[in-house]
Amino acid sequence: MSIVVVGSLAFDSIATPSGRVNDVLGGATTYFALAASYFTQVRIVGVVGEDFTAEHEGILKKRGVDTRGIEHSKGKTFRWGGQYLDNLNEAKTDFTELNVFESFQPHIPAEYKDSEFLFLANIHPILQAQVAREMNGVRLTGGDTMNYWINSTPKELVETLKLVNVLLINDTEAKMIARESNLPRAAQKVLAMGPKALVIKHGEYGATIFFREGAFGVGRHPFRAPALPIEEVQDPTGAGDSFAGGFMGYIASQEDLNREVLKRALFYGGVMGSFAVERFGTERLQSLNREEIDARFQIFRELTHLE
Amino acid sequence: MSIVVVGSLAFDSIATPSGRVNDVLGGATTYFALAASYFTQVRIVGVVGEDFTAEHEGILKKRGVDTRGIEHSKGKTFRWGGQYLDNLNEAKTDFTELNVFESFQPHIPAEYKDSEFLFLANIHPILQAQVAREMNGVRLTGGDTMNYWINSTPKELVETLKLVNVLLINDTEAKMIARESNLPRAAQKVLAMGPKALVIKHGEYGATIFFREGAFGVGRHPFRAPALPIEEVQDPTGAGDSFAGGFMGYIASQEDLNREVLKRALFYGGVMGSFAVERFGTERLQSLNREEIDARFQIFRELTHLE
Repeated sequence: MSIVVVGSLAFDSIATPSGRVNDVLGGATTYFALAASYFTQVRIVGVVGEDFTAEHEGILKKRGVDTRGIEHSKGKTFRWGGQYLDNLNEAKTDFTELNVFESFQPHIPAEYKDSEFLFLANIHPILQAQVAREMNGVRLTGGDTMNYWINSTPKELVETLKLVNVLLINDTEAKMIARESNLPRAAQKVLAMGPKALVIKHGEYGATIFFREGAFGVGRHPFRAPALPIEEVQDPTGAGDSFAGGFMGYIASQEDLNREVLKRALFYGGVMGSFAVERFGTERLQSLNREEIDARFQIFRELTHLE
Repeated sequence: MSIVVVGSLAFDSIATPSGRVNDVLGGATTYFALAASYFTQVRIVGVVGEDFTAEHEGILKKRGVDTRGIEHSKGKTFRWGGQYLDNLNEAKTDFTELNVFESFQPHIPAEYKDSEFLFLANIHPILQAQVAREMNGVRLTGGDTMNYWINSTPKELVETLKLVNVLLINDTEAKMIARESNLPRAAQKVLAMGPKALVIKHGEYGATIFFREGAFGVGRHPFRAPALPIEEVQDPTGAGDSFAGGFMGYIASQEDLNREVLKRALFYGGVMGSFAVERFGTERLQSLNREEIDARFQIFRELTHLE
């Protein structure tokens, strides 16, 4: 089965206590695609500029990612610069140059239309809704958003949430959307807005998935997966997008779509996030294999499971 | 088997979004003792004033807690006032009156000396060390501390840590003691100071236990237990002490002292913490039964365990 991901491709310049890199291929879609590529066929929809070379595209193609939906525009690719010198848990943005991404209009190639899964990375909720409607035959639509859209386009976001089956956001975003400071109550409010399941990412503490009553199975008990305590975090950039890639990629690799699959997917999300931060940019995500991934899945299991 | 707990008994005045109570029996030792009482015999060492009545003592005695080590002094019992009106995750102290607790000198009754377990609640590290030396035949000594002692008596704390087998603290305290912002690295540094195991409490995200290489078993893989996502937190006061009571109480109830027991204990710590916050003060901890506790243990298991 295959998954279409729509969102940003970027060149990132990143400084952390472990070092610095300039203009490395990044963006939510890149992290997502590489992470998901170990589980399923991934098809990208995005836009890049003239500075995006065959070498950059090769990073994706080498992982079998379908790049036919990448639009090549005149101008420069989206660029982001940030640093984590004071706090590895929070990026401080040095600069954002939207460039060709500013006028991004997602076009889904006809060849992508048979994909059974869709992920709407963090872009304008109106664009997310357009894509979701265009791909409305999919088995499952996942989505992300951020504080910027929650604050500036709340009405549009509410419309988009009706089209998203599984929303993946962090604690702060969930509390902002729900206007509720208690996390499980915030989760119930977000679920009432449309999604059947809500994944709340807690950074170094893992993630919780909340289910709408009756969705994907019985009851509304949540489920928690850990994050790995990592002594050497080189670069946290893309951890959340890699999480989403592992989560959605694993789901797309399974025949069934039930709570047990979503719970395992939550573990695989954590696994891919834990790999992503071990090296700068997407370096670690480029050269994994399924044995390493499943070995780490076992470590996550041992981290949380009693005998 | 029985456990001796040394620390504060207090009267608390607490305001939260759910309401307010005045002068209810609290203090680390009270929460610890009530939580641990569902697993093992608990023996208290502490000091109270003339305002501590037979009715207050009855709350402890009703749970079978041995109160012979409570010293009755002239003056008033330790009083604390605090509120969580803005943030349920952090207490804002309104007042602290140490009263008889200011000159507390722990005396271990002769009848307590055969206890096999000891817990040093949060008091001056010099007093903790005195008690640990006096009880040096125990199978396991647990301990707590706080930012105040970490900052004001660091040398004394270092000496105490050599006598504590399992230290239970929160993320901030671990990072402060280790002077290290990365949590797993901080954990390794704290373990190098003495404890065989370190429990780091993450509040609503649960807790992680780190083991010194070879202690209680093989390897140094940590283990994570969840906290319960609770929609109705009435009063967070005492959650950490109740966690410690469930953790140490469960350990004291077991024949063996190995990693599997410590992992289960981490779950029981979370269970008792989750009960504590459901009602004001110690109300919920006064009237539980083992069936309710084990039912919640199962909920914690389902919250984290894959099929």
